[in-house]
Amino acid sequence: MQQIDQLIHAKWIITCEDKNKVLENHALAIKDGKILAILPSAEANTAYQAKQQEHFSTHAVMPGFINSHTHISMNLFRGLADDMELMDWLTTYIWPAEGKWVSQDYVTDASQLAMAEMIRCGTVCFNDMYFFLGATAQVAETVGMRAHIGMTVIDVPTAWAKTTEEYFAKAIDFYQQYKNSPLVTPTLAPHSTYTVSQENLARVKALADEYKLKINIHLQESAAEVQGSLQKYKKRPLQILDEIGMVTPDLIAVHMTQINDQDKEILQRTKPTIVHCPESNMKLASGACPVDDLVKMGLNVALGTDGAASNNDLDMIGEMRTASFLSKLTTNDPVALPAEQVLKMATLHGAKALGIDQVTGSLTPGKSADFIAIDLAQMETQPLYHPISQIVYASSRQQVTDVWVKGQRLLKNRQLLTLDEKELLKKAQSWSSKIQGTTSVDQKLVRSS
Amino acid sequence: MQQIDQLIHAKWIITCEDKNKVLENHALAIKDGKILAILPSAEANTAYQAKQQEHFSTHAVMPGFINSHTHISMNLFRGLADDMELMDWLTTYIWPAEGKWVSQDYVTDASQLAMAEMIRCGTVCFNDMYFFLGATAQVAETVGMRAHIGMTVIDVPTAWAKTTEEYFAKAIDFYQQYKNSPLVTPTLAPHSTYTVSQENLARVKALADEYKLKINIHLQESAAEVQGSLQKYKKRPLQILDEIGMVTPDLIAVHMTQINDQDKEILQRTKPTIVHCPESNMKLASGACPVDDLVKMGLNVALGTDGAASNNDLDMIGEMRTASFLSKLTTNDPVALPAEQVLKMATLHGAKALGIDQVTGSLTPGKSADFIAIDLAQMETQPLYHPISQIVYASSRQQVTDVWVKGQRLLKNRQLLTLDEKELLKKAQSWSSKIQGTTSVDQKLVRSS
Repeated sequence: MQQIDQLIHAKWIITCEDKNKVLENHALAIKDGKILAILPSAEANTAYQAKQQEHFSTHAVMPGFINSHTHISMNLFRGLADDMELMDWLTTYIWPAEGKWVSQDYVTDASQLAMAEMIRCGTVCFNDMYFFLGATAQVAETVGMRAHIGMTVIDVPTAWAKTTEEYFAKAIDFYQQYKNSPLVTPTLAPHSTYTVSQENLARVKALADEYKLKINIHLQESAAEVQGSLQKYKKRPLQILDEIGMVTPDLIAVHMTQINDQDKEILQRTKPTIVHCPESNMKLASGACPVDDLVKMGLNVALGTDGAASNNDLDMIGEMRTASFLSKLTTNDPVALPAEQVLKMATLHGAKALGIDQVTGSLTPGKSADFIAIDLAQMETQPLYHPISQIVYASSRQQVTDVWVKGQRLLKNRQLLTLDEKELLKKAQSWSSKIQGTTSVDQKLVRSS
Repeated sequence: MQQIDQLIHAKWIITCEDKNKVLENHALAIKDGKILAILPSAEANTAYQAKQQEHFSTHAVMPGFINSHTHISMNLFRGLADDMELMDWLTTYIWPAEGKWVSQDYVTDASQLAMAEMIRCGTVCFNDMYFFLGATAQVAETVGMRAHIGMTVIDVPTAWAKTTEEYFAKAIDFYQQYKNSPLVTPTLAPHSTYTVSQENLARVKALADEYKLKINIHLQESAAEVQGSLQKYKKRPLQILDEIGMVTPDLIAVHMTQINDQDKEILQRTKPTIVHCPESNMKLASGACPVDDLVKMGLNVALGTDGAASNNDLDMIGEMRTASFLSKLTTNDPVALPAEQVLKMATLHGAKALGIDQVTGSLTPGKSADFIAIDLAQMETQPLYHPISQIVYASSRQQVTDVWVKGQRLLKNRQLLTLDEKELLKKAQSWSSKIQGTTSVDQKLVRSS
């Protein structure tokens, strides 16, 4: 019998591979943080001697979620202001609060809180864009999550950097520090075509080529953004990026709710990844990304929650459900974006977007042991005819009971193992007292009550 | 000091009255199943001597949800088949399964399972339409939930009734049996204008007038329904009902995703209640009810989940969030259907729809003690700037910890007090084995994997 580290038996194993399999009464054999084999439980018991063996007899075991677009440190502004016009929300609440509070300490605490929330809903990897990158990266390494950290470039001075030179200098510093990290992957994150000059976008592209980095950008999020670009440059944002040569399979274009025939020609030729953030797009009234059209064009489409200040959560299960419902509504077709397809958007297609699909994103021998267990024997997911339908259309994030990254357990029967929940709740309350005192929140309380 | 039954102290009390109030550190004083007073906790301690006193120091206490449109007994078909064309779904799965399985026993078990799910997400009252009415009514009385039970009329033979005469006879029997029930209220439920003849609709209207009953009907759920009506009758469904005199404030028109100027004229003149079921409408690709327009026209709009076979849950918190997001998207206005308004749709406006807003639907002295506690000190709802934002946009149904109806506790710290959870899970599994064996589910499992 072969000696291994862990044998995880489950009622169902959902592989999320290109040719997805739903296996009953199978086991995951894990050695050195990797998946060694997936085989029937009975066979596993005779083939392997495991240091640790566990039975998830009412659970589905599947790859952890990959949240392909986040601003996790905005978590501390969640619910600070809702139901407002975008510019009112930004200028009255978010920007003043960011200007006053965002710092190394703020980002450290906010990242911890957000990672706790993400682990508790089964997320093992996230693709972030914010400030004080080192703080988030350090928390990810300590906590044990995979983090793709966007090195933000924006033509606006912030607490993080005052000038273009400083943004680029800090990006290069961050890259040098984390380029060999086992969990953190630096990416480039020019904010958008309306906040970054074409000169600076070209500079980002050159840096990405030099270091072989993915580029994330908010793109064609709303009709107003496209309109503004047409007025200012006589070009749509996608065309601007295409002319710079930035639109390639290494571009992660976030939102893309506005797509016309000219855009389709560019997308079909260049094949970037699109990240769909349906709840943010709905809540901010931005529009709906035509996911089905993009998939039919052969593009990789991944799923993200966006920041919790605009969404207002980091819940990938809820996001899958909304993505599927929204596609059915906008295409007028109840067959659109079925459960199994949206489950892959939240796992394997996220890994493809981030360029790590050889490493994670599906349960495949040789890949990293990044997986979760979801208990389906709860009232809300009974009776059960098909586990994927129940996960996507009926389950809640609280049914995620256990989470592992590289074979390390981060959540055990709903308890966080690498973060202190009580401590984090105290920190959240302390931050909210400070932030609330310095914004117009009191006025909001009056307005709403 | 006045002797009372219960004193419920809470961090926040949200009244959901027409002029909603969010009160901090207040208490609900309860006597004989009714709300006696709402006052600051400190004052309550000196004014009342309560047999039972409890402190919800991290919770919001608010009225329980009213789910204004359900087919709760379809719960046992939840996830039997998803992502299908409506007619394929109905003819291949749902109708054969209903034909074979729906019975007094089936409805009893399904009703128990559904009520367990509803109580666990904070619902205190539901407005149902299905078969074997007595079974659901009896479970509601035993469990302690408020149930409005639609006496179904449909021109199709079912296991419940074979002929029009039998449907009406069973309706009258049910009405006579439950007309004085403290928890069950009979209503009339002609299925739709495409499944009930105009002659039978007129007969329903006459019966409703005789017994002073509300009428529920599925109305203009999809473009195909309206198109079919125009082809067959040269009239839209709403016009058919208007000519019969059925469209009054006592009509509960469910869905209404299709509304043109002619419909608006009728609605403005007749003022029925509209029940919005956004998740069902999205999942079945039916369309989106223009809630904001209807509210501006002065109509009462309530919220429902529809049956869990099409939605796929009975979760009013998720439904509120989707309703708000969908309104913002379809009106292109991030201010549309704000958190506080959708919270009232799920409580007070549901009570108005059912004609019980003098009895329940808000926390108001004199009304029934139908209320819930939601714990907001969890990671996912921290930090907290405004409790209503957090409930609607960030919380999950699992944060509902306690539920009372008429002062009787149905859920205590997530434990059901009037239903046996383990027993119900066994029943659900037993039903799913039976149902799965007799439908095309195996084929579905192959298709999806």
